[in-house]
Amino acid sequence: MLEKIDLSRKLEKGEFKALAPSLMDRLGELQRLAKSAQVPILILFEGWDAAGKGTLMNQLIQPLDPRGFRVHNVHEAGENDRFYPPLKPFWDMTPPKGRIGIFNKSWYRLLTDDFLGELDPAHAKGRKNLRKNLFDDILSFEGQLAQDGNLIIKFFLHISKKEQKKRLKKLSDNPCTQWRVGPKDWMRHENYDATIPLVEEFILKTDKSHAPWTIVEAHDPDYACIKILTTVSGAIEAHLARIESTKSTQQRKSAKHEPSAAAPATPSPTMAPTIFRNLDMNKTISDSKYHQELEDLQDKLTQIGYELYQKRRPMVIAFEGVDAAGKGGCIKRLTQCLDPRGYEVIPTSAPNDWEKAHHYLWRFWTAFPKAGHIGIYDRTWYGRVLVERVEGFATEEEWKRAYAEINEMEEQWLNYGAILLKFWLQIDQDEQFQRFSLREDTPQKQWKITDEDWRNRDKWPLYEIAAEEMLLRTSTK
Amino acid sequence: MLEKIDLSRKLEKGEFKALAPSLMDRLGELQRLAKSAQVPILILFEGWDAAGKGTLMNQLIQPLDPRGFRVHNVHEAGENDRFYPPLKPFWDMTPPKGRIGIFNKSWYRLLTDDFLGELDPAHAKGRKNLRKNLFDDILSFEGQLAQDGNLIIKFFLHISKKEQKKRLKKLSDNPCTQWRVGPKDWMRHENYDATIPLVEEFILKTDKSHAPWTIVEAHDPDYACIKILTTVSGAIEAHLARIESTKSTQQRKSAKHEPSAAAPATPSPTMAPTIFRNLDMNKTISDSKYHQELEDLQDKLTQIGYELYQKRRPMVIAFEGVDAAGKGGCIKRLTQCLDPRGYEVIPTSAPNDWEKAHHYLWRFWTAFPKAGHIGIYDRTWYGRVLVERVEGFATEEEWKRAYAEINEMEEQWLNYGAILLKFWLQIDQDEQFQRFSLREDTPQKQWKITDEDWRNRDKWPLYEIAAEEMLLRTSTK
Repeated sequence: MLEKIDLSRKLEKGEFKALAPSLMDRLGELQRLAKSAQVPILILFEGWDAAGKGTLMNQLIQPLDPRGFRVHNVHEAGENDRFYPPLKPFWDMTPPKGRIGIFNKSWYRLLTDDFLGELDPAHAKGRKNLRKNLFDDILSFEGQLAQDGNLIIKFFLHISKKEQKKRLKKLSDNPCTQWRVGPKDWMRHENYDATIPLVEEFILKTDKSHAPWTIVEAHDPDYACIKILTTVSGAIEAHLARIESTKSTQQRKSAKHEPSAAAPATPSPTMAPTIFRNLDMNKTISDSKYHQELEDLQDKLTQIGYELYQKRRPMVIAFEGVDAAGKGGCIKRLTQCLDPRGYEVIPTSAPNDWEKAHHYLWRFWTAFPKAGHIGIYDRTWYGRVLVERVEGFATEEEWKRAYAEINEMEEQWLNYGAILLKFWLQIDQDEQFQRFSLREDTPQKQWKITDEDWRNRDKWPLYEIAAEEMLLRTSTK
Repeated sequence: MLEKIDLSRKLEKGEFKALAPSLMDRLGELQRLAKSAQVPILILFEGWDAAGKGTLMNQLIQPLDPRGFRVHNVHEAGENDRFYPPLKPFWDMTPPKGRIGIFNKSWYRLLTDDFLGELDPAHAKGRKNLRKNLFDDILSFEGQLAQDGNLIIKFFLHISKKEQKKRLKKLSDNPCTQWRVGPKDWMRHENYDATIPLVEEFILKTDKSHAPWTIVEAHDPDYACIKILTTVSGAIEAHLARIESTKSTQQRKSAKHEPSAAAPATPSPTMAPTIFRNLDMNKTISDSKYHQELEDLQDKLTQIGYELYQKRRPMVIAFEGVDAAGKGGCIKRLTQCLDPRGYEVIPTSAPNDWEKAHHYLWRFWTAFPKAGHIGIYDRTWYGRVLVERVEGFATEEEWKRAYAEINEMEEQWLNYGAILLKFWLQIDQDEQFQRFSLREDTPQKQWKITDEDWRNRDKWPLYEIAAEEMLLRTSTK
């Protein structure tokens, strides 16, 4: 595929000066429009060494308001990478709404660089599997971002092996630039032909309509610059037009019909959940047995915590459940016996403005524990299909999509070697009433109970349906 | 000093169980009070290896709401440390208002660990100087945080060399824990006596009323735990009481007198600034000369950018000036010739909520460029003594204090080897009026001009005074 590309393309004399200024003006304006439409944009620069990434990126950002973009140098990151699932650092870098993230190299380096060899073999089920997983991970990552309204533009800057050699040699021959070419660069040059199939594979496998590749013929820098400017402008224009047309379709719809009710109707009896109804809520344990077992298990857990650290396995413990079911108490008994240097409790409440400006899974990715550590989530990403569903903070389309998104995220964690435990804590309505009342009557506990807790209680049946559907759809092997 | 400490202190049997629960309850309540008073709290754990930091930290955090604190493991950080001024990573970790940062080791490791030896000798003017600078840096850091309302609690966990040996040996003898003791630990044990003077020095030199040290006799873990709980509770109580008494003093004052005017009075003629009046605003350059020189200088700058990178010097370029003076245009011409992988433009506008929850210098520290990179600040920390002063966002006490704080920060950057350039761009009122009008009349420029710009213009004399005082007080050698 790459070999068939006509690399002789170039601009006529004077053409660049005639085209560039108006293209740049237009791009600056589009950036402002994308900002007011709250669109996050990702622009990736992949390509051969010496293809001119630096210069071309610089030309692209000239017309942009620096308050609205950020350049991420991916090849410089990575000292810590092997302590996290492969896509974690890239989730961290996703731009907030209305901003542009420009990637100098990207997650595709996972597929071409030495990364595969550097991964701890203890975690990888063989390189082949890992590579297959990486494709799935990347497709899932880009797909989830696109679904959330991110615009993804991917460039591959293409030059021939001969041209690359010429450019590397020119850099080496100049005393001012020779430091920029090291033995590694020459080694990669030697590997040019062997790398072609790897590049073709990732371009073909990840060229999706929501995240298409544009191959840029980069022998003539002016031609490349114009192609990049045109592509970015065109992609933003098309994206904004799509948003507009979706809006007007929705307006037409809502003009014709009644608006769909924000709060779901009360469930019919046949829809009533059965999982919770069939639980034996009277299970109990004697005080003395509890204390004895607690002590034994805590001792064991202390050891296991250190073992996780030695084996560099990350662990995620997720707590969900009805209000006042005792999540806090469980977490306390868990952490009592753990080394505070090895775990972190990550409380989840309503997202703040910065979190809202990102994909809803972003804050859980950024909090993912380093290999060897334990992340204890007090409420979790399941909020999307629980509180956000019931309260209408997520649209029906959004929360229905979330089951698959959550399963994909958890699968990536497990593939990396993480241990994931998810707990649902259940009490019945009578017990909750008693606990709420006790909290109100106990001065030291009053801060734990708010009007919102009572309000949520009124929606018990809706929460029960949501929780049951969640358990059914996300209790994977 | 350390030798005189009575390490035989311990609790009587049963005393711990009698004291701990109520102390812990009290601490939980104090955390909630400190949260509503918006106090940031830093709790440092320094001390000998095997002194029991992990266990004691865990006991401290048991009563705390996990949403309100974060544990920072400093000995794990540091791979990247040498690419930044020594205190930068710790600025990044400062807790926001109402939260607690718990430090497992802290900036004091700079003074005792191998850090000094690891620093690139090209940047350090000899170890001795560096050590002296570090003391100044730490005193400035803690002082600035305390001034801003942070409560700082510092513990040194003390055990004897004999006790340390016993504990290390116990850990080594147990197959489950022997991995926790490596050759480095034994080496540090051998160095125990040689380390004492270093520890005594930093305790004596940094034991300030706003950030006092508490030495914890840590042979008896129960005794140590009670001492820590008592100290933390006492410090929070005293801090909250101070805030209360300041409040009531201020209320008494404002009841007696008229409230002091928020906006400063119009300056008297004798106060009128002279720096700006004496500038020759007619300086100009011919178009052809401009383009020729620009091209030459940009070529030079491209080379210098790479040289900075090779020599791993960080560079900060700060732009301030009156509105429409042309900061954006200057930055554009600067960056046109720089490699986008080597610089970042850091725009400064009104702080967001997360930034407001920190010290006002925090966001400039966190954006500090990595060694070898260039950070271009479009408006800067000088906002404290310009817009925040004129608009009354900072109190008079706060902006007057800021000159020294800013000088301290810049000095730390320079000591680390940074190159700092600060530009003030000046135009006169007539020119500004013409540029504002042009912006309003040009469709592509309208977004650049807002009502606020016109409002700020009305305060021209006040801004001029503020800028002049800033130039006088912060133009250091």
